[in-house]
Amino acid sequence: MGNVVIPVNLGADSYEIVVERGVLRRAGEILNLRRKVMIVTDSGVPEKWVRTLETQCREADVFCLQAGEMNKNLDSFRAVMSRMLAFGMRRGDCVAAVGGGVPGDLAGFCAACYMRGIDFYNCPTTVLSQVDSSIGGKTAVDLDGIKNIVGAFWQPKAVLIDPDVLSTLPPRQVANGLAEAVKMALCFDAEEFSRFEAGNAAGRLDGIIECALRIKRNVVEQDAKEHGLRRALNFGHTLGHGIEAVLGERENGLYHGECVALGMLPMCAPDVRLRLAGVLDQLGLPTACEANAPEVMEAVLHDKKAAGDRIFAILCEKAGTFTERKMAPEELAARYTEVFDH
Amino acid sequence: MGNVVIPVNLGADSYEIVVERGVLRRAGEILNLRRKVMIVTDSGVPEKWVRTLETQCREADVFCLQAGEMNKNLDSFRAVMSRMLAFGMRRGDCVAAVGGGVPGDLAGFCAACYMRGIDFYNCPTTVLSQVDSSIGGKTAVDLDGIKNIVGAFWQPKAVLIDPDVLSTLPPRQVANGLAEAVKMALCFDAEEFSRFEAGNAAGRLDGIIECALRIKRNVVEQDAKEHGLRRALNFGHTLGHGIEAVLGERENGLYHGECVALGMLPMCAPDVRLRLAGVLDQLGLPTACEANAPEVMEAVLHDKKAAGDRIFAILCEKAGTFTERKMAPEELAARYTEVFDH
Repeated sequence: MGNVVIPVNLGADSYEIVVERGVLRRAGEILNLRRKVMIVTDSGVPEKWVRTLETQCREADVFCLQAGEMNKNLDSFRAVMSRMLAFGMRRGDCVAAVGGGVPGDLAGFCAACYMRGIDFYNCPTTVLSQVDSSIGGKTAVDLDGIKNIVGAFWQPKAVLIDPDVLSTLPPRQVANGLAEAVKMALCFDAEEFSRFEAGNAAGRLDGIIECALRIKRNVVEQDAKEHGLRRALNFGHTLGHGIEAVLGERENGLYHGECVALGMLPMCAPDVRLRLAGVLDQLGLPTACEANAPEVMEAVLHDKKAAGDRIFAILCEKAGTFTERKMAPEELAARYTEVFDH
Repeated sequence: MGNVVIPVNLGADSYEIVVERGVLRRAGEILNLRRKVMIVTDSGVPEKWVRTLETQCREADVFCLQAGEMNKNLDSFRAVMSRMLAFGMRRGDCVAAVGGGVPGDLAGFCAACYMRGIDFYNCPTTVLSQVDSSIGGKTAVDLDGIKNIVGAFWQPKAVLIDPDVLSTLPPRQVANGLAEAVKMALCFDAEEFSRFEAGNAAGRLDGIIECALRIKRNVVEQDAKEHGLRRALNFGHTLGHGIEAVLGERENGLYHGECVALGMLPMCAPDVRLRLAGVLDQLGLPTACEANAPEVMEAVLHDKKAAGDRIFAILCEKAGTFTERKMAPEELAARYTEVFDH
């Protein structure tokens, strides 16, 4: 794949996503790194990707978070902000994330709040963050066990997506990210979903990422603040978050994308579900879930307590489309039980 | 004074400031209080004003901060956010500040970040916050000794200014706020400055507040994010912040407005300075400063280290106008020494 530039048109907050193998090595040609750059990363990111960016900055400091969602919190936020102050950063300086969704969300929120907002660049290094969290301007940290409750909408000035960095990613992490790409295909692009069914995802990874980014870009352009269409991106996430709360936080627990994969199944019409299960199987994503319905539903309702107690369910009756409707918790539980046979 | 409505036109973020005696008692007619309302106030605010708002809310919780700038920090931010979560607040709920600039800045920042932004109402109860911090959308907390370094631009949905609440304010606090009103008159409105010279500020307090609000509104509409014109509002603040760092934080120290009053004097042409000193005298604001120039300058430069090390000086050569130019620290120090004779 050559140099693909995906413009995101959001008025004064417009920016470009560059998808290109090796683009991280020429970041200095695209981003303005001739200033102080606070690089935010985590201990799970291979140091060579961080160094690749760092060596192109005129003056950089690196904040390396201990890997794990549990560190996406206000303590880390304060620690980064203090480091930015100690580094003497000013309004004209910038923050750059190198890593997955956790450093990306944290770094974006720090950029949003430092001196009431400075430039932010995102260099996502996982499939999940490349297809999903690198676009949309959602930044946040968790508080009191509630995900992403403290945050801001803050658009990056540019996003660099370098599929080369995925070479160091374990296969299970690749599949984890592909779950979100499958989600977008299933709701918005029947052809792309058929390509998933045809197999060989590993061989067309760059194209999958690009397609998912275009879908998400189109949605975000139409609904930047998540008042309508953007809610469709929550397909699979209501049950998915519930499953994640039950099975994701234990040792060797499920990853986010794996939980979303499971969370999609009960929201599909039977024939679509069968096709989706085939795709998930191929990708090495789970199709069976051992969590009990009552536990999952308790977590779903706890989650929704903060977000509003009506459940907006996104359903897929036909590949490439979605419908939205309010759903009683009982129906959601029944759907879960029917599919996972608990 | 009757009901004065000052519209602030900021596109999608437009709102109205209502200036009216007794307006706090009819807040429920103007604001949407038929939802969960987190009221943020501090221990210095007479309880009756908080109760006046609280009793008009369908469901309210009150977060009362210990009074003092030192509590405008990330610990308080986290505490309010946790309380909002525990109160079960959702995207459609709101935060309301009742108090001076400290609860106002904190409450606004909490509203900006909770679920990436919910509605914010401001009911300022001091002259200073009524004329100054109630307008402009600047919200923030302090970190590591640097003021307002962590924050967001977040416009209120409405501001209620009730001069009746000033009846419980000590005279020194009234004068403290008037210093900012004098600043705006001096830079933008020669007629209003002449009215200050004519005396009887106490007798025309409502009119002073209204005039200051109109000036600030006009500036903020033209420059919401402080890229240009809005910097003029920093008149007196560069030296003022330096003086505040030296004399403001000790016991019985100077108030913010008193420091700004002093900080303006060295930035005026000699004839303007004489007139300004006369106005400050009349209002009971200081015109002499015991801080040593080196101490003040050290604090000024420390302050500027975070904001950029060039000093943008605002000068007043003629009442009702201002000029802006870059100034070397040495010239600023010389001006200070000349006026305060150290």
